[in-house]
Amino acid sequence: MHPFTKYSSESIARLGERKLLEKIRLWLGKSSPPAPHGMGDDTAILPIEPNQFNLITTDTLAYKCHFNDTVKPEQAGAKLVKRNLSDIAAMGGTPSSAVISLFLPPTLRLDWLSAFYAGIRDEAIGSNIKIVGGDLCETKDFLGGQLTLWGNARRPVTRTGANSGDFIYVSGTLGGSNCGKHLDFTPRLAEGKWLAEQPGVHSMIDITDGLMKDLPALIPPTCVASLSIKSLPISEAAETLSAEDDQSATQHALSDGEDYELLFTLSNTCDSKLFHKKWSERFEIPITRIGEMMEDLNQNQPRRIINLDTGHELEELGGYEHFRAS
Amino acid sequence: MHPFTKYSSESIARLGERKLLEKIRLWLGKSSPPAPHGMGDDTAILPIEPNQFNLITTDTLAYKCHFNDTVKPEQAGAKLVKRNLSDIAAMGGTPSSAVISLFLPPTLRLDWLSAFYAGIRDEAIGSNIKIVGGDLCETKDFLGGQLTLWGNARRPVTRTGANSGDFIYVSGTLGGSNCGKHLDFTPRLAEGKWLAEQPGVHSMIDITDGLMKDLPALIPPTCVASLSIKSLPISEAAETLSAEDDQSATQHALSDGEDYELLFTLSNTCDSKLFHKKWSERFEIPITRIGEMMEDLNQNQPRRIINLDTGHELEELGGYEHFRAS
Repeated sequence: MHPFTKYSSESIARLGERKLLEKIRLWLGKSSPPAPHGMGDDTAILPIEPNQFNLITTDTLAYKCHFNDTVKPEQAGAKLVKRNLSDIAAMGGTPSSAVISLFLPPTLRLDWLSAFYAGIRDEAIGSNIKIVGGDLCETKDFLGGQLTLWGNARRPVTRTGANSGDFIYVSGTLGGSNCGKHLDFTPRLAEGKWLAEQPGVHSMIDITDGLMKDLPALIPPTCVASLSIKSLPISEAAETLSAEDDQSATQHALSDGEDYELLFTLSNTCDSKLFHKKWSERFEIPITRIGEMMEDLNQNQPRRIINLDTGHELEELGGYEHFRAS
Repeated sequence: MHPFTKYSSESIARLGERKLLEKIRLWLGKSSPPAPHGMGDDTAILPIEPNQFNLITTDTLAYKCHFNDTVKPEQAGAKLVKRNLSDIAAMGGTPSSAVISLFLPPTLRLDWLSAFYAGIRDEAIGSNIKIVGGDLCETKDFLGGQLTLWGNARRPVTRTGANSGDFIYVSGTLGGSNCGKHLDFTPRLAEGKWLAEQPGVHSMIDITDGLMKDLPALIPPTCVASLSIKSLPISEAAETLSAEDDQSATQHALSDGEDYELLFTLSNTCDSKLFHKKWSERFEIPITRIGEMMEDLNQNQPRRIINLDTGHELEELGGYEHFRAS
């Protein structure tokens, strides 16, 4: 059977990425356990014994999709590792080992590949993980790869533990990652691990697609997320970009992808002053309360985000969705 | 940096796959532990506790490399799973969970992808593994993917345990997998697990590149492998192919890839009659003694294979090597 079609009505472009993922779960049927033991969270969680869980995650990287000629091969290699580390961080886990598979054309420069692996090596040594295996596949002209990373956690924090009344927090600053942070980011491993040790932290995710796209995953069925727009920690890069294009810095902070910051919810019964104090004793990056989960009996699907100051619904800016026919 | 070059002297084509793998290990440096805890065996072995090991393996699958339009998408999906299962089988392990990453162009037929996942699902359910995660990446026109599979074993059998004097055995029959077995093969999971329980089984590998290419991995530094050519279990497909081309059935059995049979060595102190009896009580496929590891103080590099009947060295037929410029 020939895999391709020129009719978008017959192709995966008909669906776009989100519906495609739903279909895949359907197609996999009984072989696909529900989250958090299967697809649907930052990593899959495999219970080993009480207070001991394995975490598994996998991410891809492709030329002209995740990096281009302006990116150093070392940076591309490091990014492949860091994208996965950020997923382990978002569960509060400790990463341990990885395998890497690459699709390479014979025309690939040897010095490019050497530098790419140097980026992987340095990131692996820096985060104390071992590269224990891999596979190579020859292609005509496609350059890409994937890394599967596993780790462990005593109490993995999933996306789905938030309660009504929880405060919404974010680490670091948001927006404008295209200016450089999408390559230079530091996975929040120490921060994620510490947060997982705080019983008041109910849910967590790393921001990869942008705050507006990732926050809905944390909203409980009977809640809306109420965001204090003026509290958003806006990055300098978002300000810089805003001066150059027609979007406000706030819009960048709400919508830009690849922040790789931690977004989490904290019980409103926690002493938040003490929480901030403990955080700032340990970490240099800021932490900011940006909103809360508010009871809403409408059971919204999709989940809603409202502006705390105006009460109006915040709508996702028309973003790009993978595979989607335009 | 632009990744590609038109000069093969600057590209990975200069090296070919084997030397490229050596380079990669070098580039990864301290982040790459030695086999069997890293690259270099069928799977990586991660010790958990005495008599308890995790096994990790990863394999790729690409359109126009591992399958083409004559292959049903169900078969392609099943093959991606089975290639990895065969690696776990070759360690004597039990597979448990997997993640899948796919590179897909928007023009991919939805019904092709649905059937591909049905093949994955059926194979996963049949071998009792769970698909716990994955990632999708949009490409211009490349179609490929990878699966990372893990499992466990009480006593993993590596490639490097053979002793001088060990007998060389192979399961099933060899050669001609292009006629269909490269898609229809059954990973030898039950057989591999039983073999790992026999203390006389010293080393094991699954035949993926062909007997002549895979056997050297089992030969100890101070040995040559002495093969009884007339003992080789030749498949019907090898006979059929031989009638159609200019290679003998024996040549096919020696050189064809993708047999996915188990090649292992057994201590010569074992009661081989009893061993054969126990095997045939459990399994329907044959098992054949095809040679032995013979002392040779020359410490050959590369390892040598000789014809037991003539004493002459058997040379690998000029085979295709990935990435290699012609």
